[in-house]
Amino acid sequence: MSFHSNDKRASDAPPAGVPTTNWQEWSQERALAATLFDGLAKDGIDTPGITRDSYGAGEQRAHERIAALAHAWGLEVRTDAALNLYVTFPGRDRSLPAALTGSHLDSVPCGGNFDGAAGVVAGMTVFSRWLRTGFVPAHDCTVMAIRAEESAWFPLSYIGSKAAFGMLSGDDLCILRSDDNRTLAQCIEALGGEPDRLRAGEAFLDARAISRFVELHIEQGPLLVERNLPVGIVTGIRGAFRFRHAQAIGEYAHSGAAARGKRKDAMLAVARLIIALDHDWDEAEIEERDLVITFGRVQTDPKRADFSKVPGHVAFSIDVRSIEPDTLLRLEACVRLRCAEISASSGVELDLGLQTHSKPAVMDAALQASLLNAAAIHGIPTMKMASGAGHDSAIFASQGIPTAMIFVRNENGSHNPAESMTMEDFACALQLLEYGLTCEY
Amino acid sequence: MSFHSNDKRASDAPPAGVPTTNWQEWSQERALAATLFDGLAKDGIDTPGITRDSYGAGEQRAHERIAALAHAWGLEVRTDAALNLYVTFPGRDRSLPAALTGSHLDSVPCGGNFDGAAGVVAGMTVFSRWLRTGFVPAHDCTVMAIRAEESAWFPLSYIGSKAAFGMLSGDDLCILRSDDNRTLAQCIEALGGEPDRLRAGEAFLDARAISRFVELHIEQGPLLVERNLPVGIVTGIRGAFRFRHAQAIGEYAHSGAAARGKRKDAMLAVARLIIALDHDWDEAEIEERDLVITFGRVQTDPKRADFSKVPGHVAFSIDVRSIEPDTLLRLEACVRLRCAEISASSGVELDLGLQTHSKPAVMDAALQASLLNAAAIHGIPTMKMASGAGHDSAIFASQGIPTAMIFVRNENGSHNPAESMTMEDFACALQLLEYGLTCEY
Repeated sequence: MSFHSNDKRASDAPPAGVPTTNWQEWSQERALAATLFDGLAKDGIDTPGITRDSYGAGEQRAHERIAALAHAWGLEVRTDAALNLYVTFPGRDRSLPAALTGSHLDSVPCGGNFDGAAGVVAGMTVFSRWLRTGFVPAHDCTVMAIRAEESAWFPLSYIGSKAAFGMLSGDDLCILRSDDNRTLAQCIEALGGEPDRLRAGEAFLDARAISRFVELHIEQGPLLVERNLPVGIVTGIRGAFRFRHAQAIGEYAHSGAAARGKRKDAMLAVARLIIALDHDWDEAEIEERDLVITFGRVQTDPKRADFSKVPGHVAFSIDVRSIEPDTLLRLEACVRLRCAEISASSGVELDLGLQTHSKPAVMDAALQASLLNAAAIHGIPTMKMASGAGHDSAIFASQGIPTAMIFVRNENGSHNPAESMTMEDFACALQLLEYGLTCEY
Repeated sequence: MSFHSNDKRASDAPPAGVPTTNWQEWSQERALAATLFDGLAKDGIDTPGITRDSYGAGEQRAHERIAALAHAWGLEVRTDAALNLYVTFPGRDRSLPAALTGSHLDSVPCGGNFDGAAGVVAGMTVFSRWLRTGFVPAHDCTVMAIRAEESAWFPLSYIGSKAAFGMLSGDDLCILRSDDNRTLAQCIEALGGEPDRLRAGEAFLDARAISRFVELHIEQGPLLVERNLPVGIVTGIRGAFRFRHAQAIGEYAHSGAAARGKRKDAMLAVARLIIALDHDWDEAEIEERDLVITFGRVQTDPKRADFSKVPGHVAFSIDVRSIEPDTLLRLEACVRLRCAEISASSGVELDLGLQTHSKPAVMDAALQASLLNAAAIHGIPTMKMASGAGHDSAIFASQGIPTAMIFVRNENGSHNPAESMTMEDFACALQLLEYGLTCEY
């Protein structure tokens, strides 16, 4: 299976364009990373693919696996009130601001092994290299294994990184897990966390004590595959607005008997909305705006719908993302306008429900330049690119911390069992990450 | 609740346009019918509305209720191998071909109290009138309570009436109930029926021994309500073709990261199909063709779909009905053409799956004329109209039996809990039914 380490390990050749100089020197890291990924693949609670549920058994096992490794290596291990895990490699001067790296360990239901976990394995692998070679960085370096980044389990993004900065509200702690309806606070407490401290807004991280945050993550689009590049350097992260629980409310009627003009067909109304927004997407593309629109969930009522009934109810979700704040505002207006038009002409009520937001985030220009410099030094072909997906890095950037992201080539997209990253590409990214954590800044 | 008998019983005035002559004479039948409907409303196994599951507890209770009533009234009661129920009022000459009436007692999940059951209550109420007045018809008259007309439970229409004519195949008896995956044969046998005799093609009814079949049914569209008429006389029944288990197979991908040109969005493909067929419906309307098209079930995968994923799979159903055989053929070609076009341009496979059919059925012209005559005699305003929905009458007509249908005005459509028929309109239909069963033919 593609998420069980690296099919190409046997060949052990560098990616196209990467010189063989120093390549052999990273072979032990490639082997270690493959072993760590294999271990993590065992922690899933469902198939197909990997399911590491946020504040559930799957995520918890992965956290315990990384913590055990850090203890075995003699590194400093801490957790915060939200149960984010911090593994610190002490620097020569411990009073200096620390360099942070890391990513999340949770996954969407039936996702892949690399989305998130790659960023934690990357930091741990760089630390193992330093332990092996005897290198000691000038300042502390910390790998953060972040909780609950995916919003598939709780209707909120970046829960772990927000919690680390004291950004969770009392209302946030009351949101319900989608599968078992326990509150976020209950789930955190059940694993030994302290929701009361989060509710009080207590921050574990102090932005002033952090010199940079560098996150390694698989690319979730096909750009690096298409351009035949092992790694990319991220310029910014798309923001989003979402209607997770929108609904169309029409009227059930007999499919054979209800005349066309009398129907209030909830599914036809949603189909019109999907097509109308696809036209709006066409227009945005002509204007070269950055945009993606997704209706990820569309469901007639499993209990009441039937092939012989005009559907009277459809539940659906809308997810709109862009790196441009004005494009997000414009599309939000489009969604509301289209809903009003379709409601008026069809008699079907389109209720968008609660809206959630995330702002676009810009990556630090100097850090981007440092990573490009590292790529040049090691002869690793790369490119600058926007991130379509949201990442914990957006929270670090919002705190004024210089933030950078390294993308690793990944076939078949993410959030699915077929995520595929080679250990050779990963090793290229490790070289950039090591530089990003240790360079003067 | 609207399915609990008749809100307007207190006023007891005839519908608009109906003379008060003889009106009082039917008051006992109106009261009895209201009581029978109230009793049936208690037999449902689920809410909202009424659920009388085909060959399940809900339908079975309704059959037992009608059989008990027939026994109490001293009428002849029989069942066939498929457990259809036959209640016979003996005529003066028992060697003459019998007149049949009746309809089905099952319902869709969470449907109404009148779709089907009205036709059984009607026959029983006419019999009770004859018992009260001492009238004896020239020939036997039989009320047939038919099993499993709705195809919501088993993927096949008219199971009971087909079975009565020996028209079920061995394959038909192997189809699975949608909720518990038991075979049709198992469900029939569990209630005491004899699937082996059905498998052998044994017929209970002989078309030569039946002079006519007259089915009373609520109207399932809004025409009689709009025209302010208590009853309608049916000219024919729409045929249909259906794809109950169609699916769109695309590729799951991260909603924020998957670029537009690289997506294989199963939901967008289905939305395009819905809209394309809606355009084809526009064209058919311009040509004044009879047509309805319904996508009754559309479902992203409840386990794998998420608001943050491009949907990789959608299950859906298509139901197309027309009274015109050539319109059905043409639309079938449209469906296949549209699927091929959308598959080619989107990369999403549209797999229509198994197709089922029912042919349009024409009602007997002489019986229609008799019913129109009865309406004139009793001063009941009526109209001729096509039936959009399928009915057991289509099976009787296909056997060469002169067949007629009487529609009763019904607000709010059918297949939903808000079905609404007044006992006053029902009493008008009873007068036509009595005439249809007893007239020389």
